[in-house]
Amino acid sequence: MPQMPEYPTALGASTPDKITLLGVDLAEDVMGEVGFGELAFWLATQRRPSPGETRVFEAVLAALADHGFTPTAITARLTYLSAPDSVQGALAAGLLGGGSRFLGVTEDAGRFLHEVLRATQLPLDAAGWDALALKTVRAQREAGKFVPGLGHHVHKQGDPRTPRLFQIAREEDCFGPHLELFAAIGRVHPQVLGKTLPLNGAGVCGAALADLGLPMELLRGFALLARTAGLIGQLAEELRHPLANQIFLSVDQNNVSVPPDPAGGTDG
Amino acid sequence: MPQMPEYPTALGASTPDKITLLGVDLAEDVMGEVGFGELAFWLATQRRPSPGETRVFEAVLAALADHGFTPTAITARLTYLSAPDSVQGALAAGLLGGGSRFLGVTEDAGRFLHEVLRATQLPLDAAGWDALALKTVRAQREAGKFVPGLGHHVHKQGDPRTPRLFQIAREEDCFGPHLELFAAIGRVHPQVLGKTLPLNGAGVCGAALADLGLPMELLRGFALLARTAGLIGQLAEELRHPLANQIFLSVDQNNVSVPPDPAGGTDG
Amino acid sequence: MPQMPEYPTALGASTPDKITLLGVDLAEDVMGEVGFGELAFWLATQRRPSPGETRVFEAVLAALADHGFTPTAITARLTYLSAPDSVQGALAAGLLGGGSRFLGVTEDAGRFLHEVLRATQLPLDAAGWDALALKTVRAQREAGKFVPGLGHHVHKQGDPRTPRLFQIAREEDCFGPHLELFAAIGRVHPQVLGKTLPLNGAGVCGAALADLGLPMELLRGFALLARTAGLIGQLAEELRHPLANQIFLSVDQNNVSVPPDPAGGTDG
Amino acid sequence: MPQMPEYPTALGASTPDKITLLGVDLAEDVMGEVGFGELAFWLATQRRPSPGETRVFEAVLAALADHGFTPTAITARLTYLSAPDSVQGALAAGLLGGGSRFLGVTEDAGRFLHEVLRATQLPLDAAGWDALALKTVRAQREAGKFVPGLGHHVHKQGDPRTPRLFQIAREEDCFGPHLELFAAIGRVHPQVLGKTLPLNGAGVCGAALADLGLPMELLRGFALLARTAGLIGQLAEELRHPLANQIFLSVDQNNVSVPPDPAGGTDG
Repeated sequence: MPQMPEYPTALGASTPDKITLLGVDLAEDVMGEVGFGELAFWLATQRRPSPGETRVFEAVLAALADHGFTPTAITARLTYLSAPDSVQGALAAGLLGGGSRFLGVTEDAGRFLHEVLRATQLPLDAAGWDALALKTVRAQREAGKFVPGLGHHVHKQGDPRTPRLFQIAREEDCFGPHLELFAAIGRVHPQVLGKTLPLNGAGVCGAALADLGLPMELLRGFALLARTAGLIGQLAEELRHPLANQIFLSVDQNNVSVPPDPAGGTDG
Repeated sequence: MPQMPEYPTALGASTPDKITLLGVDLAEDVMGEVGFGELAFWLATQRRPSPGETRVFEAVLAALADHGFTPTAITARLTYLSAPDSVQGALAAGLLGGGSRFLGVTEDAGRFLHEVLRATQLPLDAAGWDALALKTVRAQREAGKFVPGLGHHVHKQGDPRTPRLFQIAREEDCFGPHLELFAAIGRVHPQVLGKTLPLNGAGVCGAALADLGLPMELLRGFALLARTAGLIGQLAEELRHPLANQIFLSVDQNNVSVPPDPAGGTDG
Repeated sequence: MPQMPEYPTALGASTPDKITLLGVDLAEDVMGEVGFGELAFWLATQRRPSPGETRVFEAVLAALADHGFTPTAITARLTYLSAPDSVQGALAAGLLGGGSRFLGVTEDAGRFLHEVLRATQLPLDAAGWDALALKTVRAQREAGKFVPGLGHHVHKQGDPRTPRLFQIAREEDCFGPHLELFAAIGRVHPQVLGKTLPLNGAGVCGAALADLGLPMELLRGFALLARTAGLIGQLAEELRHPLANQIFLSVDQNNVSVPPDPAGGTDG
Repeated sequence: MPQMPEYPTALGASTPDKITLLGVDLAEDVMGEVGFGELAFWLATQRRPSPGETRVFEAVLAALADHGFTPTAITARLTYLSAPDSVQGALAAGLLGGGSRFLGVTEDAGRFLHEVLRATQLPLDAAGWDALALKTVRAQREAGKFVPGLGHHVHKQGDPRTPRLFQIAREEDCFGPHLELFAAIGRVHPQVLGKTLPLNGAGVCGAALADLGLPMELLRGFALLARTAGLIGQLAEELRHPLANQIFLSVDQNNVSVPPDPAGGTDG
């Protein structure tokens, strides 16, 4: 007879009179003692962050929590309109928009910087960072690719989140190589591209999360965690001042019937 | 020509050089200044909580973040195994298990207590709370219904989260009528039911969230927010020590083919 | 040592040289032999439907597949815009709108008729159906409730799907007690309500699915299956003639910042 | 004042007395006249398929509908256990596992063949297909990549779906260049790889869908449509013979608490 498999975990476990989480007593040592951002960091890394790391991490979550009427926010509101019995469905539908395009820059920037740094001998001095950044921007340009985290369609003169997160990371001694490289890209890219683009907020968040040692594969996950709080805010506002039905009608009532287009097929 | 509809919001908004959230400057007044739990509360209520309210709220989130290998955790791991390119899909799939049965007690308890209190003249003294609780438990029993938040299949002698959350709420002056009624139910129910059941952690969380003035319709949403952090922890652990394939195989390799059962239909 | 659990199933199973589904050979007896609607029915009931049952079932699926720019369609398009790397996410997000309000009438009508019939001695003659329908509509009215499936905001003079599905069910000898009762409600309700409302398409679909013996708990599932095909159609059209970005901008560009409203809380 | 945008569509539209879909009358010309597989094809391409195309398409859907206790099936059952009030959530959660690993081969194979054919001058004779296949397999091998659709962990001596789908496509005159190339890969790959691998069912389905002219970007969508029917079958069986709680307990009761592992971080 085959043996039952075992499933090891350092996360939640309980006995009749005690609950542990991450090896500590949930009721005594976590509840009332550990903030929610701190706990999220701890769960993801299995190490408790310092207060400075927590402050940087929570600044990132604040930067990503809500960006107004994004596709994810509209989707959560429409789904709640359509299935008000299922709050979990409305939140899940909203999060499903957190893919490559809208929430992906955070992950893309973090991974991109990480890849460059894997091939780099550290430490570097200021001139060294600028040289590395110059080489990096040139290589992307030659490959016909963008630098993730560079450019913003609204904040063309500078994204206010970027200098602020630089400042917080410096204050907390969390300004590591990913942020160094990202800042250097901000300084040198005009030499290569011939124009000055802003370092955007999503990108600086990716650099900061990478410097905090969070897992690369889950950088998008932290953007989604932040957005979950934002989507609850959207649903709470929807409950007070419903907009979703108006959004739905603004599309449905402006539909125009056109004939089928069998030749309209795309070509992969 | 019909007029374009307008969409008012107090949440995120931006101009070329400024981003506001909840009427304040995101970069200056939120990032680095507001913790993530505090921000989630603020987004949901549009009012900034006091430090004491934040502590109670974050204690609730800690209590609900991860309960080990729940269906939601298993689901998130299996979905990540199956579609590793989509972290948002794994988190969304996990959250979709946050329905009436596994994460619903928090909402059910909060709503139940809220309904009782709507029909009650406050304030009450200690004897008044016990009398109300007695009436409430009797009414449920006569209707053949359970009291939400009463009983636990593991913590039969008491759920360690419950006294701890009572204590934190008292320390922070957040022990309101929902917690009062819930505590009173804990004292008096043996008189009616003839046995002593524990007040469970999910239930006390619902009572505490209701006392904080969070919207009843979204109580489940806060359990889901907490669980999002827990699911990221599950995925991070899955990345280090993969278990999902073993879970999948333990089911698939123990399948037994049986003939179709056309008469097995259920009867609604 | 605990014994490994076993997992019986009549669905898909395979050996190195054979795949079975529902007890038959997938390659030889299903592929090329069984239509997709027929297979969906067979999977749900574990009995192969007759050609007539298949025709009624597929007529229901056709009636529910696509209703234009519904919240589910808009949601699928917006999610695809936002996360084009994840077709599964766009479809899942669309389906999550298939809850109580937009796709729920099919299930509500089927269950409602089923409940009435459980308490009824069959068979009935024409006068018997009218009497039962009259009693049913009166009971709903006295309880202050609507009759599911009665009324439509666009097709006020009659929903064209309803007589057509009646006709198809009669042609295929699938006009059972749920459709009988639904049709009778259509005849008698003006006597009670003082006005004539149309029997809507979603409702007649629920009645037809119930007469086919499909499981009550999953009636909504068949509406979702139909809608999956419709959402693929929406995404295919979005690929050819993108609209989602315009929908997003029509909301985002018409946002109006208003101050937070801490007193706006709802009251459960 | 900005002009209201318009939203053209060839899909569902309705007036008070008529509903059209794809330019035809839904009640008269679709319901009772068009099978569900045929309709799904029509919705995706905006052209009505021939009976032969429909037969090939439905054979593909049958091949992909249910593969037993896959991660998607387990996920749908666990989610239904956890949130039985939301059938849409259980189906959506199941579909979210339909990503790159488990349902992705269909899409990968279709796209891979399509890319090779874009660079190829057609028509080819038998020797020409073999030469193209040889070149293709060699190029993949030299790049250190697998050929999508080649190999199967269970059906090592041949997947029974593959010859059957070849046969059906030939019978219906739908054996186009994607299937030709796929079949040729099956003939020639042992010369390059030094061993004989089976052409798997998911791969042949991708080739057949591509030959039918379905949009490349949505090939995964058809696998998901098929799987929606399969997941409804899984939920229907779960209703009759519940297994999800046993699956959950088989994991939860075999958990083993281990200490946190802060050094266990992955490296992107």
